[in-house]
Amino acid sequence: MTQAQLRPLSHEEIVAVAIEQAAQAGLDGLSIGSLAKSVGLSKSGLFGHFGSKQGLQTEVLNACHSRFIERVVQPAVAHKRPLARLRALLENWLDWAGQSDGGCLFVATATEFDDRPGPVRDQVRAASSNWVATLERAVSLAVEHGDLAPETSPRQFAFELHGLMLSYHCRKRLIESDQAASMAKAAFTRLLKSYGA
Amino acid sequence: MTQAQLRPLSHEEIVAVAIEQAAQAGLDGLSIGSLAKSVGLSKSGLFGHFGSKQGLQTEVLNACHSRFIERVVQPAVAHKRPLARLRALLENWLDWAGQSDGGCLFVATATEFDDRPGPVRDQVRAASSNWVATLERAVSLAVEHGDLAPETSPRQFAFELHGLMLSYHCRKRLIESDQAASMAKAAFTRLLKSYGA
Repeated sequence: MTQAQLRPLSHEEIVAVAIEQAAQAGLDGLSIGSLAKSVGLSKSGLFGHFGSKQGLQTEVLNACHSRFIERVVQPAVAHKRPLARLRALLENWLDWAGQSDGGCLFVATATEFDDRPGPVRDQVRAASSNWVATLERAVSLAVEHGDLAPETSPRQFAFELHGLMLSYHCRKRLIESDQAASMAKAAFTRLLKSYGA
Repeated sequence: MTQAQLRPLSHEEIVAVAIEQAAQAGLDGLSIGSLAKSVGLSKSGLFGHFGSKQGLQTEVLNACHSRFIERVVQPAVAHKRPLARLRALLENWLDWAGQSDGGCLFVATATEFDDRPGPVRDQVRAASSNWVATLERAVSLAVEHGDLAPETSPRQFAFELHGLMLSYHCRKRLIESDQAASMAKAAFTRLLKSYGA
């Protein structure tokens, strides 16, 4: 953070550093104190930015969600053909989860906060539900377009697609299998076929 | 913990309380201090039991793994018929992850520790790898027995089966869908069918 010695970091830059820390240490492992050190500000200076640890967590999730929409969802929904859109949702997600430092913050926070009622859990839950709804809409479109069998349940398809993403996350980041991506893509091809594509 | 006022808790009982705390707060959120309060011992008394926070984390994972083997794996591998064994592995896991307070500690610690090299990560990784290997063996048996198509890849099947378990965990515990179990079972039936069962 020599940059901090040259000019003050902007609010957005501080949030970006916080996202990196949360990816490593968990959203709850993120502290105003350790973030203050990293960005060369005083703890009271950082409280001025975020108000509280929960304010910091909320901003990190919001900023990370915007990134997710920008990198994963928007380039995929730009595809007009439903199967191309569905495939892009998968592939963008694999890139997102495989390449970002610390994996997908939403996968990590899902298990970190699932048993801790409160606004942070509500936010994590909303992000996961939105993602599932995005997958379901893409499947519905493919069914309407005749790319998948008419009896396909978008809910069930999205459940299975979400599962292969989560399996990839575990294989890639914890078990460190170099075949994680090829297994995820093979599973997707099998999934499409089983639904009549 | 009125029990603690009557007689000292055994080491096993203290570990059981620690498992509950880890399930709620994460393995890293578990502290010797908060555990000491819960069991009515001094911090130094607890250091005597575990040596360090890492010693405590290691014991919690070991004890939880023993429970997992006892509740999920052993009753399933008691089934002689390969498909019954595979189905029992799924159903026991759904019970394990859906009913225990805090869900599956291994799912939670997988994302909590995947980016933190060290002995705890090694232990979490070994537990996940063992579980995947258990699933792969059960699939191999079903293939040898002629219950699944001979070209079935046990690795690929286990990847997909693991995925539907993880999808269930997210739906059940975070999104709180009351259809999580039925979607997981439907996905399993579809999986078997797609592999020729």
